[in-house]
Amino acid sequence: MKVICMKEMLMKAMNTVSRAVPVRTTMDILKCVLLQAEDRELKITANDTALGIETSIDALVSEPGITAIDASLLQSIIRKLPDSEVMIESDAEQTVTISCEQSRFTISGRDFDDFVFLPEVNADACIEISQFTLREMTNQVIFSVADSDLNMIMAGVYVEIFDNKIRMTTLDGHRISIRISELKESYDPVSAIVPGKTFNDLAKILSPDMEKTMKVSFSKNHAVFEFEKTKMVSRLIEGEYFRVDSMIRDEYATKITVNKKLFFDCLDRSTLLISESDKKPVIVDVKDEEMGIRLKSAIGSMNETIPIEKEGADIRIAFNPRLLMDVIRVIEDEEITVYLLKYNYPCRIRNEEGTYQYVVLPVNLREE
Amino acid sequence: MKVICMKEMLMKAMNTVSRAVPVRTTMDILKCVLLQAEDRELKITANDTALGIETSIDALVSEPGITAIDASLLQSIIRKLPDSEVMIESDAEQTVTISCEQSRFTISGRDFDDFVFLPEVNADACIEISQFTLREMTNQVIFSVADSDLNMIMAGVYVEIFDNKIRMTTLDGHRISIRISELKESYDPVSAIVPGKTFNDLAKILSPDMEKTMKVSFSKNHAVFEFEKTKMVSRLIEGEYFRVDSMIRDEYATKITVNKKLFFDCLDRSTLLISESDKKPVIVDVKDEEMGIRLKSAIGSMNETIPIEKEGADIRIAFNPRLLMDVIRVIEDEEITVYLLKYNYPCRIRNEEGTYQYVVLPVNLREE
Repeated sequence: MKVICMKEMLMKAMNTVSRAVPVRTTMDILKCVLLQAEDRELKITANDTALGIETSIDALVSEPGITAIDASLLQSIIRKLPDSEVMIESDAEQTVTISCEQSRFTISGRDFDDFVFLPEVNADACIEISQFTLREMTNQVIFSVADSDLNMIMAGVYVEIFDNKIRMTTLDGHRISIRISELKESYDPVSAIVPGKTFNDLAKILSPDMEKTMKVSFSKNHAVFEFEKTKMVSRLIEGEYFRVDSMIRDEYATKITVNKKLFFDCLDRSTLLISESDKKPVIVDVKDEEMGIRLKSAIGSMNETIPIEKEGADIRIAFNPRLLMDVIRVIEDEEITVYLLKYNYPCRIRNEEGTYQYVVLPVNLREE
Repeated sequence: MKVICMKEMLMKAMNTVSRAVPVRTTMDILKCVLLQAEDRELKITANDTALGIETSIDALVSEPGITAIDASLLQSIIRKLPDSEVMIESDAEQTVTISCEQSRFTISGRDFDDFVFLPEVNADACIEISQFTLREMTNQVIFSVADSDLNMIMAGVYVEIFDNKIRMTTLDGHRISIRISELKESYDPVSAIVPGKTFNDLAKILSPDMEKTMKVSFSKNHAVFEFEKTKMVSRLIEGEYFRVDSMIRDEYATKITVNKKLFFDCLDRSTLLISESDKKPVIVDVKDEEMGIRLKSAIGSMNETIPIEKEGADIRIAFNPRLLMDVIRVIEDEEITVYLLKYNYPCRIRNEEGTYQYVVLPVNLREE
């Protein structure tokens, strides 16, 4: 293989595909990227077997060929090269030479026979969506994906397409997050549980440009994300997702509207008094026109009052402030509306248009 | 005590003095700042016994008084308060209340009787210098202060005042760094070994403004740095500093001039091939008009050529590239001049004006 390409493009491509290089693995070949030079393009692929990413960049190919190189070494070499053309050559013994201006690196390539190529996916359904929208929706629900490997389904993002809508749902043991956006066209219904990690990686690669679109397709076992010259293939999580709608009660006894920043900053301050060994909740006292927020721990106590608009009954309820902050942080509205039923019932934060709905479990006040 | 001050000023003051709060200590009182409200000012002091910092801010004092508060807790509370007036009150039981707009924190103060106040220093000598200059000089020599507690003197910065000059010297086992600047006036000679940590902290507090000056004074055991409303008192390191001038040989066999950025970037690339277990040096081959730089390790090999101007003999010499990079990074000149004698003699990097001189030990090529 012998190929010349621009350092900047190569760097960007490496940053993209390296998200599919596992940090820890016992299979050495998974730590590599596969370089394929052909037809005026250099295609770069990484695949950790759950997620695979390939992307292509323009290149001058003087000898078509294929080679596998340690991804992290290649990435750090390219990063430190001058901003100029980079030549990558490999010989039959898989000795790889990387040259740029006066600099020349020689490293050992890997035997690419073991490389796990991206699977061929025969999609049953395919939608078009703006990259910006999918990126935003991801950032707005991803925080309540459960870390734990105990329940694989909780580690996923539930994606549903119906009519001209896309709905994304995540939940851990304490919260449910739901976002809905409109699509330009209507589609047949389809749903899939995509690993949270896939969306996490995707959100970091997608363009924040509102005009750029992408294709998302689903087969029984895979989701495929295609945009510009990049393709991400992710395994799906098998199983049936939770019946979230039946978990959310629509009734409420108290409805309050509060300034998002005031509420967030106040909760943020309360966390100063929480220590690893003393996880006290914040106690919220909803009254007419104001809401008292207080927290008392071994470190000290905090007491604040925030103006609110209220409909319905007074209520006292307690929360882990960090769980509420995660939700409030991703809401763009200046004012948020909170629905409460009883001190031991989940609170709901949602807008009138129904484009978002968040459910947060309270801390049982009886325990306090 | 009852005092009102602006959040921004309080925050800045806390950031300044908190550099003298030890990260680890068995003396709880050292983790505190002392607040003293008096005469339209709030004075804040921290003292880890080696370094003490006090600074004052404008304040409305309605009850003069004094209290000690956990520095880290106070700093984090203030950081999260709204941008407004902050009221701090303490009662006879040392219960401290911090209020800002609708927010009120109550925490326990400490008994301040144990607090170690800043020592009274009777200075033997005092100079005036621009904050910018002292900040620059510090950043240019501080990297070769030895970390080790094995030799206390190596952990210091040697400061010498003579005529209208200030000279700062540091050295670890592998390098010597010397910077000289001019002062506006001439002073009687004085010298002191100041802990590296003091200069490190100082450089982070000093203003980058060229116009602002400061006073530096020395007694037998202390150095005092005064600027604006801040005073830093540092213990000196006892003992005699190394006779650095007698360690540096002025003769050379080869003198080269090289572009700083080209040289730095090349050394930087070579570090990619160095691993924890395989610390290969970079081999520098000085020839007429060019210098070859190469490194070969188990990871791979690198080979570069950089244009140079050369006087004197060809030479091959090996270095730990990181030691050279630390030096080159802090030189402002576009071109640097390197003096070499033999493969096993230190190299010197200095300018004609003599305002800087760096000495770096080579790696013995015989071992390679």
